[in-house]
Formats: sequence, C-alpha cells, structure tokens
Amino acid sequence: MNKKQLSDIIFRKKSVLCVGLDSELVKIPAHIREGRTDEDAVFEFNKAIIDATLPFTVAYKPNLAFYEALGLAGWSALFRTVAYIRSLNEPVFIIADAKRADIGNTSRLYASAFFGDGKSTPDFDAVTVAPYMGKDSVSPFLSFEDKWVILLALTSNPGADDFQLIQATENSQLFERVLNQSKEWGTDENMMYVVGATRADMLLKVRKIVPDSFLLIPGVGAQGGDLNEVLKNGWNKSGGLLINASRSIIFASSGDDFAASAASEAARMQKEMAQFINQL
Amino acid sequence: MNKKQLSDIIFRKKSVLCVGLDSELVKIPAHIREGRTDEDAVFEFNKAIIDATLPFTVAYKPNLAFYEALGLAGWSALFRTVAYIRSLNEPVFIIADAKRADIGNTSRLYASAFFGDGKSTPDFDAVTVAPYMGKDSVSPFLSFEDKWVILLALTSNPGADDFQLIQATENSQLFERVLNQSKEWGTDENMMYVVGATRADMLLKVRKIVPDSFLLIPGVGAQGGDLNEVLKNGWNKSGGLLINASRSIIFASSGDDFAASAASEAARMQKEMAQFINQL
Repeated sequence: MNKKQLSDIIFRKKSVLCVGLDSELVKIPAHIREGRTDEDAVFEFNKAIIDATLPFTVAYKPNLAFYEALGLAGWSALFRTVAYIRSLNEPVFIIADAKRADIGNTSRLYASAFFGDGKSTPDFDAVTVAPYMGKDSVSPFLSFEDKWVILLALTSNPGADDFQLIQATENSQLFERVLNQSKEWGTDENMMYVVGATRADMLLKVRKIVPDSFLLIPGVGAQGGDLNEVLKNGWNKSGGLLINASRSIIFASSGDDFAASAASEAARMQKEMAQFINQL
Repeated sequence: MNKKQLSDIIFRKKSVLCVGLDSELVKIPAHIREGRTDEDAVFEFNKAIIDATLPFTVAYKPNLAFYEALGLAGWSALFRTVAYIRSLNEPVFIIADAKRADIGNTSRLYASAFFGDGKSTPDFDAVTVAPYMGKDSVSPFLSFEDKWVILLALTSNPGADDFQLIQATENSQLFERVLNQSKEWGTDENMMYVVGATRADMLLKVRKIVPDSFLLIPGVGAQGGDLNEVLKNGWNKSGGLLINASRSIIFASSGDDFAASAASEAARMQKEMAQFINQL
C-alpha cells in the first residue's frame, strides 16, 4: 500500500486507529479456547476481533512475540490471520511488529520473510525495524515497492530512557539522530517511525525533523497516552498517524461479549479521531 | 548451560568455535535439495554440517532470518535442528541469533519462545538481543536459569558506525555505554556481548569494561576478521570467547564433499585456537 492509498483510507474512515493483535493465548476468552487447538483459538479470536473492529480501523498490527511464543502453531495462526485480512474486500494496512534488523545480507532475508507472496510467507505492508545496527541493516527492507519500514525512534517503555534519550550530538538526542540519519536511507513514501504516545510532548520535536512522515504511535490506551494530545501534536496533511491500541481493545472483555466490547472501544476511539478530523 | 559448563567444553575441546547455521536455501548443495521439501533440505543440510563439525565446535548459532524466510517450513527445520543437536550425546551451546527485544511484557513472550520446553518451542541456551529499547526490553530474558542474553554491543557491519560509535558521553561511545549500563541488568553468568571481529582493536576497549564476560565474535572468516588477533585481545580466564564463522564453514564447498569441506575448515580454525590455548 502506498502513502496516498493509506491517506485515502484515513480520510474516508475518519480514523487513524491501528488495532494491535497482541493475542496472548492465556488472555483469550475461555469459551474461544475450549475445544480448539492453540492455533485455531488464536486465529478464531483474531478473526472475531477483526470482523468487529474493521469499520473503525485503518491498520492491524500483530506483535510477533505473542505468536512466536506458541511455536509453529503461533506462526500458522499469524499467517492465517494475515491471509484472512487480505481476503476481506477492503484495503487495510498490516504491520508486522517484529522489531527485526541484522547485517545487510541477512536483513534482506528478513524482508523477504515479511514482504512475501502471501502463500508460504505473509504479505505484510510494513515491518518494524530496530535502528541500532545502522543503514545496511535497514536498507534491504526499503527496496520493496509499496512496502514500509517502521523504524523505532522513541519507544513507549521505561527503558527508552536508557539510550534513546541520551545526548548524541550537541543538538540532538539519540532518537533525533536516528530520525535525521534515516532520512538519508528512505523517504516518507517508504519509511515511518515508532514514537511512543507516553511522550506526547516529544511529538513536536519529532515533527520538526520528519514533518511529512507517518508515525506509528503505541502507548495510547493501556499504557496511558492521551489520544487528543497525540492527534494535535502529530497530525499532518496526509494524516500522518497510526495510533495503536492493543489490550484496551482486544481484551476489553473476557466474556462472551469480547468482540462487541472490542468494537465499542474501537468505535469510541474512532469517534474521538473523527471529531478531530472534522474540525480540521 | 552455565558459565562453568561452557568454559569446561572450551578447555576440553581446545576450541571457541561457534558454527553459524546460516543455511540459506539457495546456497545448499543441489544434491541435498533434489527430491526433498525445503524443510527437509535445510534440516538434512544442517544435520550433515553438525555431524561433520561437532568435534571442533563448542556452539551452534542459527541466524533466524534464514529460517523465517521460508515460512513454516523454515521454522520447522529450525526446531528440528535444535532438537537434533540436543539429541546428541554431547553438551553444546546453542544460540538463537534472533536480535529480538520489545517492551517488557512482550519481551517476556520472546524469551519463552526461545527458552522453551524443546517440544512446541525450542530450548536454546542463548538469544541475541538488541539494546535500543533499554533495560525492561532485556531483563525478561535474564530470569531463566542457565540461559543467556547476548546483547548487541558492537556489530561487524558498516552500519555499526551510524549509531554504535557515536560519542554518547564525554568518555564513552554508545557501544561502551551499552556495555556499562547493561552490567546493572545482568551478570557475566547470564549476559554476553556481540563484538564484531572486524574491529579487533575495539576488543581491548570492550575488555576494559567487561573483563569477565563472554563475547560472541562474528565476522571472522567471510567477513575478514583476524582470528589470532581476536584470541589475543579477547581471551580471559574462562575462555570468554565464542568465535563465529558461518559461510566460510557451511558453504566451504557446494559439491558432494560439502560436509567434509566444512569439517576441514572447522578443524583448521580449531587448530589455530588450540595452538593459542596450548601456549597459555
């Protein structure tokens, strides 16, 4: 999916909501797990969440840890989930939250693992990539047409302070240096950035460096970031935001009504987004 | 495997060789691929390489990109490879070169994916972890008994210059800060570091900060690092080194003699290591 197509979905749906499919097996409602294999339980849960939230959502983001933890069953559930989303008659952006990166010739293989044919390997639109290993670890992901790198810049966890916020040059912290340097590797047509919503004031700093880029914003919802502040500080003319919520949507209820509850929570967030967009 | 057990293997075998199982399908000898599924071809190749190199080797390190690129077939070949090594009547250290890390509650799932039960998930001894997200992304891997984090410090690729070598404080570059900070998270009994052999002089800097830790050294062999210089600059009283070679061993020949050629190259490296160890 290219930038214009993504932007079109945002303005049509009046939403920048990304639903994080962090489908940890033990948190899936018991009645879904009963009588099913782990693989089927995860897939059926995801399918129900997707069906319920699609009207309010522009992107889905499975975090791969939750699938890898189940071994082959998890990978199979993940691949089936991506294929299911693709089978729907509606364009939607799919992110592999994998935080991969390796030396150049190896990153090329990771890229082919996520930007696959949709048969033996899934056809995600984007993959999250860690910047520590530098340019040649990121570049191989950028050579796929209409596919995206989402580079970790400033994450939403406490450990972000350890390195991302250190003074890297006289005028910039490490995350700002990552933003600046990466602009030489890709463009706002093939590179986005992870910026944690728990640091909404930081969005203003980020926007000074990458005004036209899309930002993937985790940490709204269960992690406590303020949605309206993120919209205000992060919005740009193409939308420029994908605001992720995971647990607060997919585990809104653990009962029979889990899908309806997920839809309600997604709708609530989308409504707040629509209010903002309507005021533009 | 704990530090003493690993050290014992090193002194018994007179080797610090780690064989990188970067078993890229298209590079596997044609006669192994013929008439086999992708999964079986990768597994049979790995099995032959392991059988041929085990006398000279203290560790195996599959890089997960090469397996992920094949989808479920690749994961299955990887899991079978780990199980095969465990089935041998010989202790050997197995590293998942996965370069994972995520926010705390998610890293916990990654850890369980690699430090598994050996049935649905593989039981690696160690996993490589990227430091960019800081303490809470690394700590969950450290709570498993006799399991190890191998933290990226200074990698062997050109992109290492982009961030790892920047001046992070008055007295230290970013990779040194990573080393220093991580000492507060783990010990030399559960944390090692990746230090690229293409920068052998840097080993002296690293050894000043982590004199007692094990270092995983990639970049000897195909990437051009000097083996003897690494031994000289990196050795400590427990050995303290795992020196990895991948392509130069496993793809030493693409003919019928690939396993014998792999054994020869592994033996050549081990002999150089034994000479060094004998002189201590």
